[in-house]
Amino acid sequence: MDTMDINASLNGGESSSYPEDLCPPDNFNMVSTWIYRSSFPKKKNFSFLKKLGLKSILTLILEDYPDQNMKFLKENKITLFQFGIAGNKEPFVQIPDDKICAALAVLLDRRNHPILIHCNKGKHRTGCLIGCLRKLQQWSHTSIFDEYRRFSHPKSRSMDQQFIELFDGREAWKVIDSKWIPDWKTLGHHAGV
Amino acid sequence: MDTMDINASLNGGESSSYPEDLCPPDNFNMVSTWIYRSSFPKKKNFSFLKKLGLKSILTLILEDYPDQNMKFLKENKITLFQFGIAGNKEPFVQIPDDKICAALAVLLDRRNHPILIHCNKGKHRTGCLIGCLRKLQQWSHTSIFDEYRRFSHPKSRSMDQQFIELFDGREAWKVIDSKWIPDWKTLGHHAGV
Repeated sequence: MDTMDINASLNGGESSSYPEDLCPPDNFNMVSTWIYRSSFPKKKNFSFLKKLGLKSILTLILEDYPDQNMKFLKENKITLFQFGIAGNKEPFVQIPDDKICAALAVLLDRRNHPILIHCNKGKHRTGCLIGCLRKLQQWSHTSIFDEYRRFSHPKSRSMDQQFIELFDGREAWKVIDSKWIPDWKTLGHHAGV
Repeated sequence: MDTMDINASLNGGESSSYPEDLCPPDNFNMVSTWIYRSSFPKKKNFSFLKKLGLKSILTLILEDYPDQNMKFLKENKITLFQFGIAGNKEPFVQIPDDKICAALAVLLDRRNHPILIHCNKGKHRTGCLIGCLRKLQQWSHTSIFDEYRRFSHPKSRSMDQQFIELFDGREAWKVIDSKWIPDWKTLGHHAGV
Protein backbone atom coordinates (compact mmCIF):
# COMPACT_ATOMS: atom_id res chain seq x y z
CA MET A 1 0.00 0.00 0.00
CA ASP A 2 1.64 3.26 -1.04
CA THR A 3 1.21 6.72 0.48
CA MET A 4 -1.60 7.66 -1.84
CA ASP A 5 -3.52 4.52 -0.98
CA ILE A 6 -3.15 5.17 2.74
CA ASN A 7 -4.43 8.72 2.30
CA ALA A 8 -7.33 7.38 0.30
CA SER A 9 -8.24 4.95 3.07
CA LEU A 10 -8.09 7.70 5.66
CA ASN A 11 -10.38 9.75 3.50
CA GLY A 12 -13.00 7.06 3.69
CA GLY A 13 -13.08 5.21 0.39
CA GLU A 14 -14.92 5.91 -2.82
CA SER A 15 -17.45 8.59 -1.88
CA SER A 16 -18.21 11.05 -4.66
CA SER A 17 -16.28 13.85 -2.92
CA TYR A 18 -13.27 11.56 -2.89
CA PRO A 19 -10.17 13.73 -3.24
CA GLU A 20 -8.03 11.00 -4.75
CA ASP A 21 -10.21 10.41 -7.83
CA LEU A 22 -8.09 9.39 -10.76
CA CYS A 23 -8.47 11.13 -14.10
CA PRO A 24 -7.48 9.04 -17.11
CA PRO A 25 -6.61 11.25 -20.10
CA ASP A 26 -9.47 11.88 -22.54
CA ASN A 27 -10.10 9.01 -24.92
CA PHE A 28 -8.15 6.66 -22.66
CA ASN A 29 -8.56 2.97 -23.34
CA MET A 30 -6.83 -0.36 -22.97
CA VAL A 31 -5.96 -1.62 -26.45
CA SER A 32 -4.57 -4.98 -25.56
CA THR A 33 -2.66 -6.44 -22.64
CA TRP A 34 0.01 -3.88 -21.68
CA ILE A 35 -0.95 -1.42 -24.44
CA TYR A 36 -3.00 1.72 -23.75
CA ARG A 37 -4.15 4.65 -25.89
CA SER A 38 -5.21 8.20 -25.03
CA SER A 39 -5.17 11.88 -25.91
CA PHE A 40 -2.23 14.06 -24.87
CA PRO A 41 -1.61 13.47 -21.13
CA LYS A 42 -1.97 16.56 -18.97
CA LYS A 43 -0.74 17.17 -15.45
CA LYS A 44 -4.09 16.18 -13.90
CA ASN A 45 -3.73 12.75 -15.53
CA PHE A 46 -0.30 11.97 -14.09
CA SER A 47 -1.49 10.30 -10.88
CA PHE A 48 -3.65 7.94 -12.95
CA LEU A 49 -0.84 7.20 -15.41
CA LYS A 50 1.51 6.50 -12.56
CA LYS A 51 -0.79 3.66 -11.48
CA LEU A 52 -0.35 1.98 -14.85
CA GLY A 53 3.35 1.44 -14.15
CA LEU A 54 4.24 2.52 -17.68
CA LYS A 55 7.64 1.58 -19.03
CA SER A 56 7.24 3.56 -22.25
CA ILE A 57 5.20 6.19 -24.00
CA LEU A 58 4.90 6.31 -27.78
CA THR A 59 3.85 9.70 -29.09
CA LEU A 60 2.86 10.58 -32.64
CA ILE A 61 3.01 14.35 -32.22
CA LEU A 62 5.49 16.42 -34.23
CA GLU A 63 6.21 18.98 -31.51
CA ASP A 64 8.76 18.78 -28.73
CA TYR A 65 7.46 17.15 -25.57
CA PRO A 66 6.57 19.79 -22.93
CA ASP A 67 8.79 20.22 -19.86
CA GLN A 68 6.22 19.02 -17.32
CA ASN A 69 5.71 15.82 -19.31
CA MET A 70 9.46 15.30 -19.63
CA LYS A 71 9.73 15.70 -15.86
CA PHE A 72 6.99 13.09 -15.33
CA LEU A 73 8.83 10.67 -17.63
CA LYS A 74 12.09 11.18 -15.81
CA GLU A 75 10.59 10.78 -12.35
CA ASN A 76 8.91 7.56 -13.36
CA LYS A 77 11.71 6.17 -15.52
CA ILE A 78 9.51 6.07 -18.61
CA THR A 79 11.17 5.86 -22.02
CA LEU A 80 9.77 8.16 -24.72
CA PHE A 81 9.46 6.99 -28.32
CA GLN A 82 8.54 9.75 -30.72
CA PHE A 83 7.33 9.07 -34.26
CA GLY A 84 6.12 12.51 -35.24
CA ILE A 85 3.56 12.45 -38.03
CA ALA A 86 1.20 15.10 -39.34
CA GLY A 87 -2.55 14.53 -39.24
CA ASN A 88 -3.99 12.84 -42.33
CA LYS A 89 -5.95 15.84 -43.60
CA GLU A 90 -7.11 15.88 -47.17
CA PRO A 91 -5.88 16.41 -49.74
CA PHE A 92 -2.15 16.75 -49.16
CA VAL A 93 -0.86 14.88 -46.18
CA GLN A 94 -0.04 11.21 -46.22
CA ILE A 95 0.79 9.16 -43.17
CA PRO A 96 4.24 7.65 -43.82
CA ASP A 97 4.11 3.85 -43.81
CA ASP A 98 7.68 3.54 -42.55
CA LYS A 99 6.91 5.48 -39.37
CA ILE A 100 3.85 3.35 -38.70
CA CYS A 101 5.95 0.20 -39.21
CA ALA A 102 8.63 1.52 -36.85
CA ALA A 103 5.96 2.40 -34.28
CA LEU A 104 4.45 -1.09 -34.56
CA ALA A 105 7.89 -2.59 -33.97
CA VAL A 106 8.10 -0.63 -30.70
CA LEU A 107 4.54 -1.58 -29.71
CA LEU A 108 5.10 -5.25 -30.35
CA ASP A 109 8.30 -5.46 -28.36
CA ARG A 110 7.29 -6.65 -24.93
CA ARG A 111 10.43 -5.12 -23.42
CA ASN A 112 8.65 -1.77 -23.87
CA HIS A 113 5.46 -2.82 -22.04
CA PRO A 114 3.36 -1.43 -20.44
CA ILE A 115 3.20 1.29 -23.10
CA LEU A 116 0.86 4.22 -23.77
CA ILE A 117 0.23 5.52 -27.31
CA HIS A 118 -0.96 9.07 -27.76
CA CYS A 119 -1.18 11.99 -30.18
CA ASN A 120 -3.13 15.17 -29.41
CA LYS A 121 -6.75 14.03 -29.34
CA GLY A 122 -6.11 10.28 -29.41
CA LYS A 123 -8.44 10.14 -32.41
CA HIS A 124 -6.75 10.13 -35.80
CA ARG A 125 -3.05 9.36 -35.70
CA THR A 126 -3.47 7.07 -32.70
CA GLY A 127 -6.53 5.56 -34.40
CA CYS A 128 -4.51 4.82 -37.56
CA LEU A 129 -1.72 3.16 -35.62
CA ILE A 130 -4.18 1.02 -33.64
CA GLY A 131 -6.00 0.15 -36.87
CA CYS A 132 -2.73 -1.16 -38.32
CA LEU A 133 -2.06 -3.07 -35.11
CA ARG A 134 -5.50 -4.68 -35.41
CA LYS A 135 -4.59 -5.81 -38.93
CA LEU A 136 -1.62 -7.65 -37.47
CA GLN A 137 -4.08 -9.14 -34.97
CA GLN A 138 -6.20 -10.45 -37.87
CA TRP A 139 -9.25 -8.29 -37.13
CA SER A 140 -11.76 -7.87 -39.96
CA HIS A 141 -11.85 -4.41 -41.55
CA THR A 142 -15.42 -3.92 -40.31
CA SER A 143 -14.30 -4.38 -36.71
CA ILE A 144 -11.23 -2.20 -37.20
CA PHE A 145 -13.27 0.67 -38.65
CA ASP A 146 -15.89 0.37 -35.90
CA GLU A 147 -13.18 0.83 -33.34
CA TYR A 148 -11.53 3.66 -35.28
CA ARG A 149 -14.86 5.52 -35.45
CA ARG A 150 -15.69 4.95 -31.78
CA PHE A 151 -12.61 6.90 -30.76
CA SER A 152 -12.56 9.51 -33.53
CA HIS A 153 -16.25 10.41 -33.27
CA PRO A 154 -17.57 12.92 -34.35
CA LYS A 155 -14.53 13.63 -36.55
CA SER A 156 -13.85 10.32 -38.27
CA ARG A 157 -11.83 10.69 -41.47
CA SER A 158 -12.34 8.50 -44.49
CA MET A 159 -8.68 9.05 -45.45
CA ASP A 160 -7.60 7.46 -42.20
CA GLN A 161 -9.78 4.44 -42.84
CA GLN A 162 -8.41 4.20 -46.36
CA PHE A 163 -4.88 4.33 -44.98
CA ILE A 164 -5.66 1.45 -42.63
CA GLU A 165 -7.28 -0.58 -45.39
CA LEU A 166 -4.32 -0.17 -47.74
CA PHE A 167 -1.66 -0.72 -45.10
CA ASP A 168 0.31 -3.88 -45.80
CA GLY A 169 1.08 -5.68 -42.56
CA ARG A 170 3.90 -7.64 -44.20
CA GLU A 171 5.96 -4.44 -44.33
CA ALA A 172 5.60 -4.14 -40.56
CA TRP A 173 6.68 -7.72 -39.95
CA LYS A 174 9.97 -6.94 -41.72
CA VAL A 175 10.96 -4.60 -38.88
CA ILE A 176 9.28 -6.39 -35.94
CA ASP A 177 11.55 -8.62 -33.90
CA SER A 178 9.49 -11.79 -33.47
CA LYS A 179 11.66 -12.81 -30.54
CA TRP A 180 10.04 -10.14 -28.37
CA ILE A 181 6.44 -10.11 -29.55
CA PRO A 182 3.83 -10.41 -26.80
CA ASP A 183 2.07 -13.66 -26.15
CA TRP A 184 -1.17 -12.81 -27.96
CA LYS A 185 -3.03 -15.67 -29.57
CA THR A 186 -3.69 -13.81 -32.82
CA LEU A 187 -0.19 -12.61 -33.61
CA GLY A 188 2.18 -15.51 -33.84
CA HIS A 189 1.66 -16.99 -37.27
CA HIS A 190 2.26 -13.74 -39.15
CA ALA A 191 5.68 -13.58 -37.62
CA GLY A 192 6.27 -17.20 -38.51
CA VAL A 193 6.61 -18.25 -34.88
CA MET B 1 0.46 -23.15 -33.30
CA ASP B 2 -3.08 -24.49 -33.57
CA THR B 3 -4.90 -25.72 -36.67
CA MET B 4 -6.37 -22.34 -37.47
CA ASP B 5 -2.94 -20.71 -37.33
CA ILE B 6 -1.52 -23.31 -39.66
CA ASN B 7 -4.35 -22.75 -42.12
CA ALA B 8 -3.78 -19.03 -41.92
CA SER B 9 -0.10 -19.45 -42.73
CA LEU B 10 -0.91 -21.68 -45.68
CA ASN B 11 -3.26 -19.03 -46.93
CA GLY B 12 -0.44 -16.54 -47.08
CA GLY B 13 -0.77 -14.18 -44.14
CA GLU B 14 -2.69 -11.00 -43.65
CA SER B 15 -3.75 -10.01 -47.18
CA SER B 16 -7.08 -8.22 -47.37
CA SER B 17 -8.82 -11.26 -48.88
CA TYR B 18 -7.61 -13.24 -45.90
CA PRO B 19 -10.21 -15.91 -45.17
CA GLU B 20 -9.36 -16.23 -41.48
CA ASP B 21 -10.24 -12.65 -40.53
CA LEU B 22 -11.48 -12.51 -36.99
CA CYS B 23 -14.70 -10.69 -36.15
CA PRO B 24 -14.93 -9.38 -32.62
CA PRO B 25 -18.56 -8.85 -31.57
CA ASP B 26 -19.89 -5.30 -32.06
CA ASN B 27 -18.81 -2.88 -29.37
CA PHE B 28 -16.01 -5.22 -28.31
CA ASN B 29 -13.36 -3.78 -26.06
CA MET B 30 -10.81 -4.69 -23.44
CA VAL B 31 -11.93 -3.19 -20.14
CA SER B 32 -8.98 -4.11 -18.00
CA THR B 33 -6.54 -6.99 -17.88
CA TRP B 34 -8.58 -10.19 -18.37
CA ILE B 35 -11.91 -8.37 -18.64
CA TYR B 36 -13.65 -7.76 -21.97
CA ARG B 37 -16.99 -6.23 -22.97
CA SER B 38 -19.14 -6.59 -26.08
CA SER B 39 -22.60 -6.88 -27.59
CA PHE B 40 -24.33 -10.26 -27.77
CA PRO B 41 -21.86 -12.73 -29.35
CA LYS B 42 -23.05 -14.28 -32.60
CA LYS B 43 -21.78 -17.35 -34.38
CA LYS B 44 -19.49 -15.34 -36.65
CA ASN B 45 -17.72 -14.02 -33.54
CA PHE B 46 -16.94 -17.42 -32.04
CA SER B 47 -13.55 -17.92 -33.70
CA PHE B 48 -12.43 -14.55 -32.36
CA LEU B 49 -13.75 -15.27 -28.87
CA LYS B 50 -12.02 -18.62 -28.86
CA LYS B 51 -8.69 -16.80 -29.23
CA LEU B 52 -9.33 -14.92 -26.00
CA GLY B 53 -9.20 -18.17 -24.05
CA LEU B 54 -12.24 -17.14 -22.00
CA LYS B 55 -12.89 -18.92 -18.75
CA SER B 56 -16.23 -17.20 -18.13
CA ILE B 57 -18.96 -15.11 -19.70
CA LEU B 58 -21.12 -12.78 -17.65
CA THR B 59 -24.38 -11.89 -19.36
CA LEU B 60 -26.90 -9.29 -18.25
CA ILE B 61 -29.72 -10.41 -20.55
CA LEU B 62 -32.99 -11.68 -19.09
CA GLU B 63 -33.66 -14.32 -21.76
CA ASP B 64 -32.40 -17.88 -21.90
CA TYR B 65 -29.05 -18.26 -23.61
CA PRO B 66 -29.50 -19.59 -27.20
CA ASP B 67 -28.53 -23.16 -28.05
CA GLN B 68 -25.64 -22.26 -30.36
CA ASN B 69 -24.11 -20.10 -27.65
CA MET B 70 -24.59 -22.84 -25.05
CA LYS B 71 -22.84 -25.24 -27.40
CA PHE B 72 -19.93 -22.81 -27.80
CA LEU B 73 -19.63 -22.50 -24.02
CA LYS B 74 -19.65 -26.26 -23.56
CA GLU B 75 -17.07 -26.89 -26.28
CA ASN B 76 -14.72 -24.31 -24.80
CA LYS B 77 -15.38 -25.09 -21.13
CA ILE B 78 -16.62 -21.57 -20.45
CA THR B 79 -18.71 -20.94 -17.34
CA LEU B 80 -21.81 -18.77 -17.79
CA PHE B 81 -22.84 -16.27 -15.13
CA GLN B 82 -26.26 -14.74 -15.74
CA PHE B 83 -27.47 -11.65 -13.91
CA GLY B 84 -30.55 -10.82 -15.93
CA ILE B 85 -31.60 -7.20 -15.65
CA ALA B 86 -34.01 -5.09 -17.67
CA GLY B 87 -32.76 -2.02 -19.52
CA ASN B 88 -32.89 1.21 -17.51
CA LYS B 89 -35.65 2.91 -19.52
CA GLU B 90 -37.47 5.85 -18.02
CA PRO B 91 -39.61 6.19 -16.04
CA PHE B 92 -40.26 2.77 -14.54
CA VAL B 93 -37.32 0.45 -14.60
CA GLN B 94 -34.55 0.56 -12.05
CA ILE B 95 -31.33 -1.41 -12.27
CA PRO B 96 -31.16 -3.51 -9.08
CA ASP B 97 -28.08 -2.64 -7.01
CA ASP B 98 -27.79 -6.15 -5.59
CA LYS B 99 -27.42 -7.72 -9.03
CA ILE B 100 -24.73 -5.21 -9.98
CA CYS B 101 -22.90 -5.97 -6.72
CA ALA B 102 -23.13 -9.71 -7.36
CA ALA B 103 -21.88 -9.19 -10.92
CA LEU B 104 -18.95 -7.11 -9.65
CA ALA B 105 -18.06 -9.90 -7.22
CA VAL B 106 -17.82 -12.30 -10.18
CA LEU B 107 -15.82 -9.80 -12.26
CA LEU B 108 -13.35 -9.13 -9.50
CA ASP B 109 -12.67 -12.79 -8.77
CA ARG B 110 -9.58 -13.65 -10.75
CA ARG B 111 -10.55 -17.32 -10.74
CA ASN B 112 -13.15 -16.33 -13.36
CA HIS B 113 -10.66 -14.60 -15.68
CA PRO B 114 -10.47 -14.07 -18.61
CA ILE B 115 -14.12 -13.01 -18.61
CA LEU B 116 -16.40 -11.36 -21.19
CA ILE B 117 -19.32 -9.13 -20.12
CA HIS B 118 -22.22 -8.64 -22.53
CA CYS B 119 -25.88 -7.71 -22.81
CA ASN B 120 -27.62 -7.22 -26.17
CA LYS B 121 -25.97 -4.12 -27.61
CA GLY B 122 -23.13 -3.82 -25.11
CA LYS B 123 -24.27 -0.24 -24.53
CA HIS B 124 -26.50 0.31 -21.52
CA ARG B 125 -26.54 -2.56 -19.06
CA THR B 126 -22.92 -3.44 -19.82
CA GLY B 127 -22.08 0.27 -19.67
CA CYS B 128 -23.66 0.57 -16.21
CA LEU B 129 -21.77 -2.42 -14.87
CA ILE B 130 -18.46 -1.12 -16.25
CA GLY B 131 -19.23 2.33 -14.84
CA CYS B 132 -19.63 0.79 -11.38
CA LEU B 133 -16.42 -1.17 -11.88
CA ARG B 134 -14.62 2.09 -12.73
CA LYS B 135 -15.88 3.57 -9.45
CA LEU B 136 -14.15 0.73 -7.63
CA GLN B 137 -11.07 1.61 -9.69
CA GLN B 138 -11.26 5.22 -8.40
CA TRP B 139 -11.99 6.81 -11.77
CA SER B 140 -13.43 10.31 -11.72
CA HIS B 141 -17.10 10.58 -12.77
CA THR B 142 -16.11 12.64 -15.80
CA SER B 143 -13.91 9.82 -17.08
CA ILE B 144 -16.54 7.19 -16.27
CA PHE B 145 -19.26 9.05 -18.16
CA ASP B 146 -16.97 9.69 -21.14
CA GLU B 147 -16.40 5.98 -21.42
CA TYR B 148 -20.10 5.17 -20.90
CA ARG B 149 -21.06 7.54 -23.72
CA ARG B 150 -18.36 6.30 -26.08
CA PHE B 151 -19.93 2.85 -26.06
CA SER B 152 -23.60 3.83 -25.82
CA HIS B 153 -23.46 6.46 -28.58
CA PRO B 154 -25.84 7.61 -30.06
CA LYS B 155 -28.22 6.27 -27.42
CA SER B 156 -26.67 7.35 -24.13
CA ARG B 157 -29.17 7.45 -21.28
CA SER B 158 -29.02 10.00 -18.50
CA MET B 159 -30.72 7.50 -16.16
CA ASP B 160 -27.80 5.12 -16.62
CA GLN B 161 -25.33 7.84 -15.77
CA GLN B 162 -27.39 8.77 -12.73
CA PHE B 163 -27.40 5.12 -11.64
CA ILE B 164 -23.60 5.03 -11.90
CA GLU B 165 -23.22 8.29 -10.00
CA LEU B 166 -25.45 7.15 -7.13
CA PHE B 167 -24.03 3.64 -6.92
CA ASP B 168 -22.27 3.10 -3.60
CA GLY B 169 -19.15 1.04 -4.12
CA ARG B 170 -19.04 0.08 -0.44
CA GLU B 171 -22.07 -2.14 -1.01
CA ALA B 172 -20.11 -4.03 -3.65
CA TRP B 173 -17.10 -4.51 -1.41
CA LYS B 174 -19.35 -6.33 1.07
CA VAL B 175 -19.81 -9.19 -1.39
CA ILE B 176 -16.40 -9.13 -3.13
CA ASP B 177 -13.89 -11.64 -1.82
CA SER B 178 -10.71 -9.56 -1.45
CA LYS B 179 -8.65 -12.75 -1.43
CA TRP B 180 -9.25 -13.21 -5.15
CA ILE B 181 -9.25 -9.66 -6.49
CA PRO B 182 -6.96 -9.05 -9.45
CA ASP B 183 -3.63 -7.35 -9.01
CA TRP B 184 -4.71 -3.90 -10.22
CA LYS B 185 -2.97 -0.93 -8.68
CA THR B 186 -6.17 1.05 -8.15
CA LEU B 187 -8.27 -1.54 -6.34
CA GLY B 188 -6.54 -2.69 -3.21
CA HIS B 189 -7.22 -0.06 -0.59
CA HIS B 190 -11.01 -0.15 -0.96
CA ALA B 191 -10.94 -3.78 -0.07
CA GLY B 192 -8.66 -3.06 2.85
CA VAL B 193 -5.83 -5.15 1.45
